[in-house]
Amino acid sequence: MAKSKFEYVRDFETDDSCLPNCWIVVRLDGRNFHRFSEQHEFKKPNDDRALHLMTKCAQTVMQELEDIAIAYGQSDEYSFVFKKKSRWFKRRASKFMTHVVSQFASSYVFYWKDYFKDQQLLYPPGFDGRIVLYPSNQNLKDYLSWRQADCHINNLYNTVFWMLVQRSGLTPVQAQDRLRGTLAGDKNEILFSEFNINYNNEPLMYRKGTVLIWQKINEVMTKKIKLPEETEEKEVEVTRTRTKVVPLHCDIIGDQFWEEYPEILAEDSCYL
Amino acid sequence: MAKSKFEYVRDFETDDSCLPNCWIVVRLDGRNFHRFSEQHEFKKPNDDRALHLMTKCAQTVMQELEDIAIAYGQSDEYSFVFKKKSRWFKRRASKFMTHVVSQFASSYVFYWKDYFKDQQLLYPPGFDGRIVLYPSNQNLKDYLSWRQADCHINNLYNTVFWMLVQRSGLTPVQAQDRLRGTLAGDKNEILFSEFNINYNNEPLMYRKGTVLIWQKINEVMTKKIKLPEETEEKEVEVTRTRTKVVPLHCDIIGDQFWEEYPEILAEDSCYL
Amino acid sequence: MAKSKFEYVRDFETDDSCLPNCWIVVRLDGRNFHRFSEQHEFKKPNDDRALHLMTKCAQTVMQELEDIAIAYGQSDEYSFVFKKKSRWFKRRASKFMTHVVSQFASSYVFYWKDYFKDQQLLYPPGFDGRIVLYPSNQNLKDYLSWRQADCHINNLYNTVFWMLVQRSGLTPVQAQDRLRGTLAGDKNEILFSEFNINYNNEPLMYRKGTVLIWQKINEVMTKKIKLPEETEEKEVEVTRTRTKVVPLHCDIIGDQFWEEYPEILAEDSCYL
Amino acid sequence: MAKSKFEYVRDFETDDSCLPNCWIVVRLDGRNFHRFSEQHEFKKPNDDRALHLMTKCAQTVMQELEDIAIAYGQSDEYSFVFKKKSRWFKRRASKFMTHVVSQFASSYVFYWKDYFKDQQLLYPPGFDGRIVLYPSNQNLKDYLSWRQADCHINNLYNTVFWMLVQRSGLTPVQAQDRLRGTLAGDKNEILFSEFNINYNNEPLMYRKGTVLIWQKINEVMTKKIKLPEETEEKEVEVTRTRTKVVPLHCDIIGDQFWEEYPEILAEDSCYL
Repeated sequence: MAKSKFEYVRDFETDDSCLPNCWIVVRLDGRNFHRFSEQHEFKKPNDDRALHLMTKCAQTVMQELEDIAIAYGQSDEYSFVFKKKSRWFKRRASKFMTHVVSQFASSYVFYWKDYFKDQQLLYPPGFDGRIVLYPSNQNLKDYLSWRQADCHINNLYNTVFWMLVQRSGLTPVQAQDRLRGTLAGDKNEILFSEFNINYNNEPLMYRKGTVLIWQKINEVMTKKIKLPEETEEKEVEVTRTRTKVVPLHCDIIGDQFWEEYPEILAEDSCYL
Repeated sequence: MAKSKFEYVRDFETDDSCLPNCWIVVRLDGRNFHRFSEQHEFKKPNDDRALHLMTKCAQTVMQELEDIAIAYGQSDEYSFVFKKKSRWFKRRASKFMTHVVSQFASSYVFYWKDYFKDQQLLYPPGFDGRIVLYPSNQNLKDYLSWRQADCHINNLYNTVFWMLVQRSGLTPVQAQDRLRGTLAGDKNEILFSEFNINYNNEPLMYRKGTVLIWQKINEVMTKKIKLPEETEEKEVEVTRTRTKVVPLHCDIIGDQFWEEYPEILAEDSCYL
Repeated sequence: MAKSKFEYVRDFETDDSCLPNCWIVVRLDGRNFHRFSEQHEFKKPNDDRALHLMTKCAQTVMQELEDIAIAYGQSDEYSFVFKKKSRWFKRRASKFMTHVVSQFASSYVFYWKDYFKDQQLLYPPGFDGRIVLYPSNQNLKDYLSWRQADCHINNLYNTVFWMLVQRSGLTPVQAQDRLRGTLAGDKNEILFSEFNINYNNEPLMYRKGTVLIWQKINEVMTKKIKLPEETEEKEVEVTRTRTKVVPLHCDIIGDQFWEEYPEILAEDSCYL
Repeated sequence: MAKSKFEYVRDFETDDSCLPNCWIVVRLDGRNFHRFSEQHEFKKPNDDRALHLMTKCAQTVMQELEDIAIAYGQSDEYSFVFKKKSRWFKRRASKFMTHVVSQFASSYVFYWKDYFKDQQLLYPPGFDGRIVLYPSNQNLKDYLSWRQADCHINNLYNTVFWMLVQRSGLTPVQAQDRLRGTLAGDKNEILFSEFNINYNNEPLMYRKGTVLIWQKINEVMTKKIKLPEETEEKEVEVTRTRTKVVPLHCDIIGDQFWEEYPEILAEDSCYL
């Protein structure tokens, strides 16, 4: 039962390492989440439990894996951006994709009950992932802008759609017909005139999605210590600095965000 | 906030579809499972709970995804073989890999308590995956033989190693030293002479790993029906045929297995 | 001027080796050969000089490079089939493509005058190439059949088209209009009734294209030798066996060709 | 003989388009040019005829193909840099590689006699090519610096080596032994003290290689015209601006070159 005569099959594996000096984005999407959200009675158009669980999973991914500079999520998708300079697993695309989605998927089930309480998880959900490379910082910013613009467009639509269904009693098909061909201004107008809703006052998390970045946190802790020359313990305050994954719900399309957090795109230890 | 000016970033996605008319294998491995198994007190050298949970997850993968003809697992790894003819997701490699590992990972947490009972799951585990293509049936059989030969070699080693540690009281380093340079025959001899163990009587699941195949099952059910001309319900037996994922613990290196289950490699609706 | 600080740029090269155990086909096409053929006054619909030059170049490619089992050419294209088992240049796709097209292109200019005599070559022509993998013998045979069927369809069309232009005096647009929507039978009928041409009697090279295969050739040579015990030289006949690239103009869609030359697909020293 | 039943073989072609917004470099090398240069009696260490022919071929490639911003050549190699923004042939790697090497190879034979006069070309030479992507301008400049540093190192070595062989009568093996372990300073010293050669006075083309760039040329031509109100033709001078491929033999490692020709890296019509 020698392994050696079969070892040749390893030669069929291909090298899938990513081009150096490019941002590596892994985007994950829920599989059949339309059905999943109905079966688990997600609140429409936005379910806070589901959004917070997604973000918890994304935080776990950022903490467990290496070299993720920023993540952005909305609805049932999350994008993870690995640093240009990352050498994690020799930049092998399959490693990046499978570690992200498997860690996310196991976390989703693991943390489910912390967010959904009595709502039982009926079956283990699936996620798919893809990988895309972006050579320049501008390309990367445009990618993230594309996802945030998508969030805005979908959320505005869904907000009006579900108002029409939930409050005006339209059927989904009627609501769809009503909205066909409307522009953003029209949708804002319907929300305001018919439901007295100013879209701009809707929660930022719904309108902007969630950005996850690393931040240095100063923690002040009280510690009991005994100095050598003293006989009694004494309480002192100790400040400890840690990095933590922090969620933000802000605009990332304009320049302000990137000027405020220049370290995200900084290539301190990059090739160049 | 028009999406269109950012849409160009989609052009950076590459087509990763797999060469047609090849077997597509996705192999999944536990991430840091050495540490994971210690923290969750896996029995050494084989933990039935862990092996059965792996198989439960693999069955879920086969049932939830499409076109998987056969799977093979051992230790903390599982290989899934998609049919040559599969057109699932246009044969895109990223879809195959991420669907397999995410479904497996979420199932691992979901079904954990069914197998580990009181042993709490401490954190969500990760898995990695890779994809390999095999053009011919012989290549595929050799791939599976390679994994089963690997199972045999590792299990024989581990069986002796843990006997030396658990029963003879050697430290891991001493056990390792004792086994350095030994051949299969030597290890069998140690097991027999020192521990009265005939390796060939060890459970098949440990020695051969687990093969998952589809089988037609005839289920006989009792059903109550009322015929039009009668007034009372009547019990009848109904036979229903379903396909089911069945675990086997048998040799797949020799020809016998493939002769017994020719449908696994059959290309009924393939290109050719 | 140390090279070392720049050497990192080598890491940007990617591994493009072809999947093992597949046929590797490189197909080459003339670049802008419509214009090229007009400027060099190619005879329409077929120019023997041009076709023979193409074949001479393809023979050179087969002799200079390694592991080409068979080649097929028609019009301004040629396909080269490398053996499944080839390990030439570690099966790197770029090596296969560039060696084929550069050897072909330099040969085209080098041998031009042998075929075109007084017709001067006006400028150096370009060629493009692509690479495709075929896992099974049937896939490969179907690829070659595809090219030969293409040859037939184009040649039948061109034969009628140029008869209508050259003999009936139609303009190209008129000839095109006349042929729009016609089937093979219609075209055969036009050739026969209007030009007294039986298409099946047209030269095989035009209708079937050119197949290049390796054949063992027995060469009988006269050699002068002097045996040790004799004083005079003596003429003897010596038979030497060499392999040579031989052009055929035959059907390769049916089984007969493959039965006659089984060694082309034979995998004598293949993986399996 | 329907083509359709074979058309499925087209699905086996893969999309090999290059990542957008990256510089695309195709580097070409002579195949077996050691042998080729001996058989065609190239002057050692540098043959002006051969170097000029290489440059003529590279100019032809730049003029015939599209979007090449700069090329750099030395010895029997040439690198061609396609613009980041190029959309030529949908950025398909195979198209870039095969067009470059085939155009180069056919030009090599076509222009041979213009440079080698009575020295007959004995057989058609081969070239290989590879493709590499560089995401940033700095990466690209480092690539070109790598090649020019390589030119310097090789040319210094070859200059001393051939002096030792040609003037001091050493055998190649003796010359090699003499140079083993020597640094650049040692080689300069040998050249100066033994052969009275100041390496820095050696021709720039040998020491720096050849850079090809596009330049606007103002051509002043004399033209005969007849103005409407006049009866006689009159000679006038007309200035016409054309772009031309111009060879330079200068340093491209330092900043000066890039500051002098900023348009080479300019992304006027790029994505961003």
